[in-house]
Amino acid sequence: MSLNALENLVDRLAALPGIGRKSAKRLAYYIINMPQADSDNLIYAISLAKKSIQKCKICGNYSEKEVCNICSSEMRDHSKLMIVQNPKDVDSFENSNCYDGLYFVLDEEHLDPLKGIGPEEMGFGRLKNRLVQDDGINEVILALNSNVESEQTGLLLKALVEESGKKVTKISQGIPAGGVLEYFDSATIRQAFENRREA
Amino acid sequence: MSLNALENLVDRLAALPGIGRKSAKRLAYYIINMPQADSDNLIYAISLAKKSIQKCKICGNYSEKEVCNICSSEMRDHSKLMIVQNPKDVDSFENSNCYDGLYFVLDEEHLDPLKGIGPEEMGFGRLKNRLVQDDGINEVILALNSNVESEQTGLLLKALVEESGKKVTKISQGIPAGGVLEYFDSATIRQAFENRREA
Repeated sequence: MSLNALENLVDRLAALPGIGRKSAKRLAYYIINMPQADSDNLIYAISLAKKSIQKCKICGNYSEKEVCNICSSEMRDHSKLMIVQNPKDVDSFENSNCYDGLYFVLDEEHLDPLKGIGPEEMGFGRLKNRLVQDDGINEVILALNSNVESEQTGLLLKALVEESGKKVTKISQGIPAGGVLEYFDSATIRQAFENRREA
Repeated sequence: MSLNALENLVDRLAALPGIGRKSAKRLAYYIINMPQADSDNLIYAISLAKKSIQKCKICGNYSEKEVCNICSSEMRDHSKLMIVQNPKDVDSFENSNCYDGLYFVLDEEHLDPLKGIGPEEMGFGRLKNRLVQDDGINEVILALNSNVESEQTGLLLKALVEESGKKVTKISQGIPAGGVLEYFDSATIRQAFENRREA
């Protein structure tokens, strides 16, 4: 493959997450072969998304307006605030239709002192202000990933929320829906056992 | 997910081959989060590839010039012509470093009468002209996929080349490198047996 434009496109595509060199090549050939209108639409979709999507100034989730549809909705329960690590997690909860409260999206997913990501970079200050200013919130739900990095973040968040005098809860851990015991590691099994409740 | 620009981008990405709805969503979030310079580069790579890559007027492979680097190279063996189904196959042979002749890329991969793809749409006329005009070619190698649709195409190509009086060969079929017998279907096993040669 000695075409610069093709190689350049493959490089750019391979830099996207989950796309290896082989898929990138396949995509590049597909794009070259696409009707011009389709590739123009793809380009337009990328530039439009970059231009029109910003972070909601209240919750930090992606939004096309200054304040997102969730934060500005009167249909939502403004007494609950769920803390998540990124906008994808908001999407997961919205799709599950189990939650009708508000969200708070952290600015960074994890504390990472080596990269200079401390509590302030993650948006803890912004969260503190929100909890102090918003009297309506009476429950803060921690909905973080279940891994070591998030565990640490969860402990700090718990302390921060408790300081504000609000109730803190966190989503439960255990065997996922459809899960078969033999495929899970001991940490999951242990958590599922320890968090057992009346059947 | 109620953002139009985001949903639009997810739709466009999910229309690409091998990218399901879930990966498309993940990619879209990644792109929104990308530094502006990176997404500009991605857009530029797509539009540059679309603009600067054309089909070589001799072999039909992708090229940045009217005649591709392979067709115009004096280092290649101009007495061999390999017929392949698409530009990706040229890439595969080039990467394998086993072939130094020329290529002929068919305009369509398969005959498909229902879609109106007959021999003419596949570029058989162009191939015939090439074989008639180019005295230097003395071996035509059929390097087609090993599936039913390509088989049919192979038979027609063989007849066409034989008519021109050139020698026709085709790439061999059998167990691929690293292949373990028990994982292959009977057709492959049968071909490997029938095409056996002295060890």
